[in-house]
Amino acid sequence: MDQFCLDTPHEGFVDITAKVREIVRRSHIGQGICQVFIPHTTAGVTVNENADPDVVADMLAVLDRMVPNLPYRHREGNSPAHVKSSLVGCSISLPVVDDDLLLGTWQGIYFCEFDGPRRRNVWVQVMGS
Amino acid sequence: MDQFCLDTPHEGFVDITAKVREIVRRSHIGQGICQVFIPHTTAGVTVNENADPDVVADMLAVLDRMVPNLPYRHREGNSPAHVKSSLVGCSISLPVVDDDLLLGTWQGIYFCEFDGPRRRNVWVQVMGS
Amino acid sequence: MDQFCLDTPHEGFVDITAKVREIVRRSHIGQGICQVFIPHTTAGVTVNENADPDVVADMLAVLDRMVPNLPYRHREGNSPAHVKSSLVGCSISLPVVDDDLLLGTWQGIYFCEFDGPRRRNVWVQVMGS
Repeated sequence: MDQFCLDTPHEGFVDITAKVREIVRRSHIGQGICQVFIPHTTAGVTVNENADPDVVADMLAVLDRMVPNLPYRHREGNSPAHVKSSLVGCSISLPVVDDDLLLGTWQGIYFCEFDGPRRRNVWVQVMGS
Repeated sequence: MDQFCLDTPHEGFVDITAKVREIVRRSHIGQGICQVFIPHTTAGVTVNENADPDVVADMLAVLDRMVPNLPYRHREGNSPAHVKSSLVGCSISLPVVDDDLLLGTWQGIYFCEFDGPRRRNVWVQVMGS
Repeated sequence: MDQFCLDTPHEGFVDITAKVREIVRRSHIGQGICQVFIPHTTAGVTVNENADPDVVADMLAVLDRMVPNLPYRHREGNSPAHVKSSLVGCSISLPVVDDDLLLGTWQGIYFCEFDGPRRRNVWVQVMGS
């Protein structure tokens, strides 16, 4: 398994496509899958539009609307971040073809920070078929 | 990796179980996993009830309620479709046992169109264990 | 593929980390991925905070707020449970390193029951890389 670190903003989506792609290329597995796993409970990973940064801004705004500040039981004050983490998910599997990550034209991989700023880890596992 | 195309409605869930199953059977991998990946940013894939079509109709209605038309920043007018894509996800892994896809009794695989009608692609990767 | 059963409450998150870990250890695959798959359409699986049980209570409360009782078309009365199942997902892939499940410090694996109480199944597939 490979991993890398990133420093995140208070709340935001960080494009990690290039870092994941580099690990996939280095692994030379030909064909298979690449698993991106986030070992944190107030962050996540998703694939979405890589061109217009307004898309991820809109996504954060809708998530805030869906998971607002309510009188939560968890005392640390970051319950919305935990919920958002489970909504987008902490694990995603991506196709590997010809020693490279294969994504759709408009797709990028985003680390989703819901409770930053922090130093975060991303775990990447590449498996051949 | 295998793939197939489908023509989608304006918004709706299209059952792709039979097409995915056919690819799994043809691959003869015995036991492993089957990854279904949607290379689009305004569509997704999910597993849900295969019997009563009202279930997926209800799901679309709730998603519309959760992600309504708001003054979004993204100018193409399809921000809700991008958000729904990340909520249901663009990638799912399914079990393969005895050269066949193994699902629960009431489960079907659905392509989720949030910004159609379009011609869409589905990528399927089958990996033996 | 391995599997185990559990008896669930009316609605709630059941920690299945220990059971999944036991299957991973028994499989001796060294390095790879572990797929947890829920063969039901009114339940799901997620990874989240393993320390404070208030986190999962908050999550259930927010999901209820996001997917309330509305005049649904599906007549069985459990449409919200179907929608929640697709929101959290029925399948998750987890990293395996050194013959063991590798999770973040605060992460646990939860079976998400949205329409219990029932006897439910969990399918676990471990694949070496």
